[in-house]
Amino acid sequence: MNKKIIDGKKIALKVTSEIKDKIEIMSKGQNIVPGLAVILIGENPASISYVKGKEKACKDVGIFTQTFNLDDSSSYDEVSKLIISLNKDDRFHGILLQLPLPQHLDSDKLINLINPKKDVDGLTSENAGLLLLGKPRFVPATPLGIQKILLEENIKIEGSKILIIGRSNLVGLPLSILLLQRGKGGNATVTIAHTRTKNIEQLSLNADIVIVASGKPNTLSGKMVSKNSIVIDVGISRLSDQTRKTGYRLIGDVNFDEVINIASKVTPVPGGVGPMTIAMLLNNVYLAATFSQKRPF
Amino acid sequence: MNKKIIDGKKIALKVTSEIKDKIEIMSKGQNIVPGLAVILIGENPASISYVKGKEKACKDVGIFTQTFNLDDSSSYDEVSKLIISLNKDDRFHGILLQLPLPQHLDSDKLINLINPKKDVDGLTSENAGLLLLGKPRFVPATPLGIQKILLEENIKIEGSKILIIGRSNLVGLPLSILLLQRGKGGNATVTIAHTRTKNIEQLSLNADIVIVASGKPNTLSGKMVSKNSIVIDVGISRLSDQTRKTGYRLIGDVNFDEVINIASKVTPVPGGVGPMTIAMLLNNVYLAATFSQKRPF
Repeated sequence: MNKKIIDGKKIALKVTSEIKDKIEIMSKGQNIVPGLAVILIGENPASISYVKGKEKACKDVGIFTQTFNLDDSSSYDEVSKLIISLNKDDRFHGILLQLPLPQHLDSDKLINLINPKKDVDGLTSENAGLLLLGKPRFVPATPLGIQKILLEENIKIEGSKILIIGRSNLVGLPLSILLLQRGKGGNATVTIAHTRTKNIEQLSLNADIVIVASGKPNTLSGKMVSKNSIVIDVGISRLSDQTRKTGYRLIGDVNFDEVINIASKVTPVPGGVGPMTIAMLLNNVYLAATFSQKRPF
Repeated sequence: MNKKIIDGKKIALKVTSEIKDKIEIMSKGQNIVPGLAVILIGENPASISYVKGKEKACKDVGIFTQTFNLDDSSSYDEVSKLIISLNKDDRFHGILLQLPLPQHLDSDKLINLINPKKDVDGLTSENAGLLLLGKPRFVPATPLGIQKILLEENIKIEGSKILIIGRSNLVGLPLSILLLQRGKGGNATVTIAHTRTKNIEQLSLNADIVIVASGKPNTLSGKMVSKNSIVIDVGISRLSDQTRKTGYRLIGDVNFDEVINIASKVTPVPGGVGPMTIAMLLNNVYLAATFSQKRPF
């Protein structure tokens, strides 16, 4: 593999194997098997495929997992009853509500019914707030995965100028807070750019690390990076491709072919941030299980 | 007054007068008098003086306020009982726990006992999370006051490059999120710098707006700003000064005498961000009172 390409799959394997070891110790030592409940509503093909990926990854590391399939037409009350019962179910340390939900359901309200100590996606307002207040409990898996890639690749974060393109609640904003925090994996000087930013090129040429989470292919072109740039591509879009069996191929937000010729290191799509996102979800489920070990006095 | 000096007191008077009008309409129309409960623990002179300022400001706009003085040696249980009783007390729409608390008390835990719908300081994790998730309810008063100054002075926020120096939970981080959000008063390109940032001068010279909340005098010198810079000084420190009756004078984080000669506009200390912080607290109490108007069906 081109040495400039950051192998997210390889890092994910390493991280996953470490989690597997920790879970084995926990299962044998404390007789606790981490458990994840997944709520899947409706039959969105992408959601089904994501859930399958998560189920497999859980099983591989020894996490007990069960998926609760609800009908597309399920009412708010039905979903909320399920969440409340899972909050009380000691088999599950983590609860994951697969998004997006059917339009008639209020995602925000339902997410906030999840016990924040089981909210392994880090999407409840309590967990988002703990991150902003400098006391993170569960951080969304994608930002965590990006931070982990930088750490595992020995890319200097502290004191570096990091440009994040995209200000979503799921990636851009929590990532900015994560990389700004004091301590390991933090202390960066962070700039957040977005659709209303002028001269992104001037900012990206000046940054040590450029993280692109705009959700739009070709957000970062070759002329926007310098030879020392580290580029992390968070995007994942389907591009029609009749040469493939599936009829499409996956592309990121970065013009990979251009950027790889100039920048110092780049994550590919697929095989970059994606596998790390699943690995960090496993990590969050393990973390959730450790909470059940801590008993109040 | 030098035209370059942003008169925070004047803007605060304008904002306060608008709040007073709204409260009058609310009191007459819906028979609701906004109420603020202040909890003051111990006898820290600065805290006592801040609380007096808040009490007076409340009275001036028609907010009912009562301060609950607890002894320095109050236990966690005593304070938590008071908070819980105030949560239920319909006279108070807002509850403010004056910080800092005596060392033996866990501020985070006590703050999070406040009903988030009465948390007018915006310090509970729920309210911090709502801000990060793009659905702000109560935003801390200082960041709100800074945003309001920019809006009232017709300083362009959207698309502007804003440098925030300081990453505190109370100012730097929530302010960055506020100025990044979509909509009015947002859409800025925000960079957050701090003690680990290299070449702050390069960043500040390049920014349209520089907001200094480092907590350290002289963080921003004259040579760090350009002639078009707008400078907002959040700092407030006491400098010994025997020519004053009090024995001290207040200074900010900006070297005012240097910066005023170069930058386009600067907020003074005192008389800049300070008065706006109190005005926005009043606004948050009014906002809290509006919640009691909305009855669920």
